[in-house]
Amino acid sequence: MQSYKTFKLSVLAFIFAILPQPSACAAEDESRVEIERTIVAQAEAWNRGDLDEFMKPYWNDERLTFSSGGQTQRGWTATRQRYAVRYPDRATMGKLTFSQLEMQSLGDNAALTLGRWQLAREQPIGGNFSLVWRRIDGRWLIVHDHSSAEPEPK
Amino acid sequence: MQSYKTFKLSVLAFIFAILPQPSACAAEDESRVEIERTIVAQAEAWNRGDLDEFMKPYWNDERLTFSSGGQTQRGWTATRQRYAVRYPDRATMGKLTFSQLEMQSLGDNAALTLGRWQLAREQPIGGNFSLVWRRIDGRWLIVHDHSSAEPEPK
Repeated sequence: MQSYKTFKLSVLAFIFAILPQPSACAAEDESRVEIERTIVAQAEAWNRGDLDEFMKPYWNDERLTFSSGGQTQRGWTATRQRYAVRYPDRATMGKLTFSQLEMQSLGDNAALTLGRWQLAREQPIGGNFSLVWRRIDGRWLIVHDHSSAEPEPK
Repeated sequence: MQSYKTFKLSVLAFIFAILPQPSACAAEDESRVEIERTIVAQAEAWNRGDLDEFMKPYWNDERLTFSSGGQTQRGWTATRQRYAVRYPDRATMGKLTFSQLEMQSLGDNAALTLGRWQLAREQPIGGNFSLVWRRIDGRWLIVHDHSSAEPEPK
């Protein structure tokens, strides 16, 4: 009897070990909500002219990469600096809108977001972006951003 | 004694369940090698003028996305068509070189590759790219590509 009990316990432990987490879908939904909320908050920060708040979801690490127009910035500081130089005041920052957000899970701790950005200002610009997110120490952070601008009308 | 044995077995099963896979690093190296080999083979296919072979690592699915210049193509067929229209012959295809490949694991079944592309031809062009890979049915496939061209010299 004892040996059968031991066997039963091992089988149960094994089944538990291979079962998917019962909350996998709920966790994916939660991640999606957290990421979407983060993106909305980013646009709000931008539109208040608060670049530091806008930068918060970017991984504060030298391994952060930001690609655009054939060039790649490396590190959080260089990425912030790029924004500061290109958008030095509220007039150039304009009013930012993110739209057409699409999320794709890349596993438990990574995700991809595609979307469009528009800056309403005297010379409006816009385009699309790809954000690669990783959950690091429990927080979803952008580890890579590849943004493209639409060609300016000629 | 039996009950202690049962307890010991449960503890062992639990430890086994929470241990990282012993081959995680080796698996990551293998993935890296497979992805790099795939990218090298892509360039070779391009340089033979073999667009179908070049397209093979792209996820053959309507959910494949290819972003560039502020626009996003959707699906494998539209992505192939974009290449066919922009590079209709060997002269426009030129000689493709990929360089400065950087890999970042995004978990067991996803990865990010950054790199540079150059087309040597009468009017050379180049830029950078971000490839998001997923392992689907055991094969590493590109599920998203965001490529940028450097601005043409004026």
